[in-house]
Amino acid sequence: MKKLEEYVVTIPDFPEPGIMFRDITSVIQDPDGLKLAVDGLTDLVKDLDFDLVVGPESRGFIFGVPVAYNLGKGFIPVRKKGKLPRETVRVKYDLEYGQAEVEIHKDAIRPGEKVVIVDDLIATGGSAEAAAKLVEQLGGEVVRMVFVMELAGLEGRKKLGKYDVESLIVYPGK
Amino acid sequence: MKKLEEYVVTIPDFPEPGIMFRDITSVIQDPDGLKLAVDGLTDLVKDLDFDLVVGPESRGFIFGVPVAYNLGKGFIPVRKKGKLPRETVRVKYDLEYGQAEVEIHKDAIRPGEKVVIVDDLIATGGSAEAAAKLVEQLGGEVVRMVFVMELAGLEGRKKLGKYDVESLIVYPGK
Repeated sequence: MKKLEEYVVTIPDFPEPGIMFRDITSVIQDPDGLKLAVDGLTDLVKDLDFDLVVGPESRGFIFGVPVAYNLGKGFIPVRKKGKLPRETVRVKYDLEYGQAEVEIHKDAIRPGEKVVIVDDLIATGGSAEAAAKLVEQLGGEVVRMVFVMELAGLEGRKKLGKYDVESLIVYPGK
Repeated sequence: MKKLEEYVVTIPDFPEPGIMFRDITSVIQDPDGLKLAVDGLTDLVKDLDFDLVVGPESRGFIFGVPVAYNLGKGFIPVRKKGKLPRETVRVKYDLEYGQAEVEIHKDAIRPGEKVVIVDDLIATGGSAEAAAKLVEQLGGEVVRMVFVMELAGLEGRKKLGKYDVESLIVYPGK
């Protein structure tokens, strides 16, 4: 059986020149790749005491839902503004150019609940930090953040310094 | 244990006046709701001979990935134009106002492969039909489409007449 990292296809200059895009669709389109990623993430959190999985739209859905299902937890989506139908709380965060605004349902997390954040990639850490702020606005506690891939050169781990961060694959560059 | 339909929250007039929005986030935020939905969808396809699960962005990711994982299949995302990094095929389809364009990776499906399409909701059937056209452009065969919910009043099943369509919950209205 191949290793997880062998399923990742790297596309130079996507979506912009100079970016090495690490593609996870090549991982999940193979049954063994999908199983390696989901089981690897599940292993990173299965011994923790926690209540809910939170995943940012939309690749966080791909990995967060099967982890929640495997461990008998609920799954809470973080979505871009305007897509969630019930009452929400929102947070803005900086992108390379401009800002993004994401939200979470107000009734999704009760004060004191313990949350794991799951996503495909940690780059600068901006979207994971935004998800954590939403959890904390509702009184929840982020007990770990887990990612399939980490671009260590972008120093997301430094930005997320107060959190417990784990990744299945660490790339040294950007 | 509650029934699946008891986890669905209905929000009147979202996103527009006159629409009864059937919310699946209330289903998946509960561990039992998530399990009922995923196990129900898995049961609808587990006896079929097929190779891959295809799910449209982004709620199709929520339900399609755990079904693929459960049954040892690969998962293929259908995404809005411009988000997939490798070579794609595209299709346009009509929305109530205007058009949408979605795409799939060219190498995702090989000629003759059998595909199951998974999504949260069948309304008019437009997005499922677009996903099926993409599969067929690549030479794949859609052996079944499965949904958590169906709005029977919008007659999506009529539009998708040539396909085998199954839903876990059928609402008579729109």
